[in-house]
Amino acid sequence: MSSEKHLGRGSSFPTLPDDGKLVLLSMRFCPYAQRVHLVLDAKGIPYHTIYVNLTNKPEWLTQKSPLGKVPALELANEPGRPTIYESLVVCEYLDEKYKTRPLLPKDPLQKARDRILIERFNQVISSMYKVFLQGLDSGPGSLTDIVQGLDLYEKELKNRDTPFFAGKEPGMLDYMIWPWCERADMLEYLVGNKYEMDQDRFPKLIKWRSQMKSDPAVQKTYLSGETHAKYIQGRRIGAPDYDMLV
Amino acid sequence: MSSEKHLGRGSSFPTLPDDGKLVLLSMRFCPYAQRVHLVLDAKGIPYHTIYVNLTNKPEWLTQKSPLGKVPALELANEPGRPTIYESLVVCEYLDEKYKTRPLLPKDPLQKARDRILIERFNQVISSMYKVFLQGLDSGPGSLTDIVQGLDLYEKELKNRDTPFFAGKEPGMLDYMIWPWCERADMLEYLVGNKYEMDQDRFPKLIKWRSQMKSDPAVQKTYLSGETHAKYIQGRRIGAPDYDMLV
Repeated sequence: MSSEKHLGRGSSFPTLPDDGKLVLLSMRFCPYAQRVHLVLDAKGIPYHTIYVNLTNKPEWLTQKSPLGKVPALELANEPGRPTIYESLVVCEYLDEKYKTRPLLPKDPLQKARDRILIERFNQVISSMYKVFLQGLDSGPGSLTDIVQGLDLYEKELKNRDTPFFAGKEPGMLDYMIWPWCERADMLEYLVGNKYEMDQDRFPKLIKWRSQMKSDPAVQKTYLSGETHAKYIQGRRIGAPDYDMLV
Repeated sequence: MSSEKHLGRGSSFPTLPDDGKLVLLSMRFCPYAQRVHLVLDAKGIPYHTIYVNLTNKPEWLTQKSPLGKVPALELANEPGRPTIYESLVVCEYLDEKYKTRPLLPKDPLQKARDRILIERFNQVISSMYKVFLQGLDSGPGSLTDIVQGLDLYEKELKNRDTPFFAGKEPGMLDYMIWPWCERADMLEYLVGNKYEMDQDRFPKLIKWRSQMKSDPAVQKTYLSGETHAKYIQGRRIGAPDYDMLV
C-alpha cells in the first residue's frame, strides 16, 4: 500500500493494515529515499510507502523522524514500532536484518572498500546538485568536477572486471550511487548538449548504467531524465511539484 | 613504534619492522584519527603510528591515503598492503575483523540506533568547531547549539541507565563521540567562564565524561583541555604546532 499523494500539513497519519510490514516514509523524487526503496525491492522485503510533502510537512512527521527528514523507516514488527533514519544506516540495517540476497560483501576489507566508495560519491553528488539547481551558472567547473569524480568509479569497475560493482548482480555500492546516476540523464534537459558521457573515458560506466536500468529493483522506482528535470525545475523556482506523477 | 615528529614535505616513509602490524597514519591533535586510536587501543590490536604534518604534507601521503587525509590505516597483514580511510569505515572494519571485545552491538536495530547517534553528533561537532576556531565571535548561538545538541545524548544515557552508552564498558558510540567531548574541556580556556556544563541539565553526561577519562584506551591518547586549547590557538592563526608535545 502506498499513499498516492504526498501528505502535508493538516494530514493524519494513514491507517495501515496491521500486517507487521515495514513502513517507509518517502518522497517520490528524493534520491536518499530511493536508496531505501532499492534495498527493500532488491531484497524482496514487503513494505508500505507513505509519501511526505517536504515543503509543508505534516505535523506528525517529527514524531516518526526526529529531524523531519525522509527516508525514515518505521519498524512495525518491533516492539514500540521504532523508526530509524539516515539512508545508509537504514540500508545497512535492512541488509543485516534480512538475510535474503545479501548486498554488502561479507569480507570486512571488501566491505570497507565499498563503504569508502559510497562515502566518496558524496563529492560527485554535491557537484551534480550544483548543476541541477543552478545549471551552468554554477560555473564551468562543476561539470568538470562531476566527470573527474566519476573517473574513480570507471577505474574501479575496470579493475573489478564485473558488470556491476558487486559482481554479476548489483549490490550495496551499486544501489547506493544509483539514484544520482539515474538523475544524470536530466543533464541533457538542463544544460542541453553541453553534457554527454564520453564513450572513450567511461566505457564501463556507460555499460553499467544501461544494465542498471534493466535491474528489476531499479525499474520499480525508475523515472526518466525528463521527469526528474521537470521536478528539479519546480525546485529551482521554490515550487517543487511532489504530486506531478499522481 | 611511533614516529615522534609529524613527517612533512621532503620526508621518506619510515622503514618499519616487517612484523605485519597495522600502520596508522595520524595527527596528534586530529579527533578523527583519535577515533581509530581509541578502537585499536580498546581492542588491544598492536599497531605502528606515523604522525603526518597536514600543513606541509609528505609527498608519499596520497599514495597511502588518496584524499591526503588522516586517519588512514595501512593493512600490512593483507596482500598488497592496502590502505583504508574514513574514520567510521576504519573503526567498523576493525570491529568486524578483530573479534576481541566487540564494540558495536550485535543486534541490527541497536546497531542502527547507535549509528544514528554517531551521525547526529556531527551537528554538535560543527557547533563546537565554530566556537573553537572563532570563540564567541561565532555568535552567542553556537554555545546554545552545542548545549541543545547534547540534550539528546543526556536523554539517551538516562534512558539506557548504564554508565556508558554501550553498557558497563565504553563501546563504539562512546568512543566515536569521545574526541570532541575531551576537547570540550578547552572551552574554559577559549571562552572563559562563559561556558560550564550545567549540573542539573547534564548529570549523566558529566558522570560519563569523568568515567571515560579513567578508561584505559582513552588514557592512551588523552590530552588536557589546556593542551588542546594551545593547539587550537595555533590553528586560529594559521600556524598549528603539530610537534608541540615532542
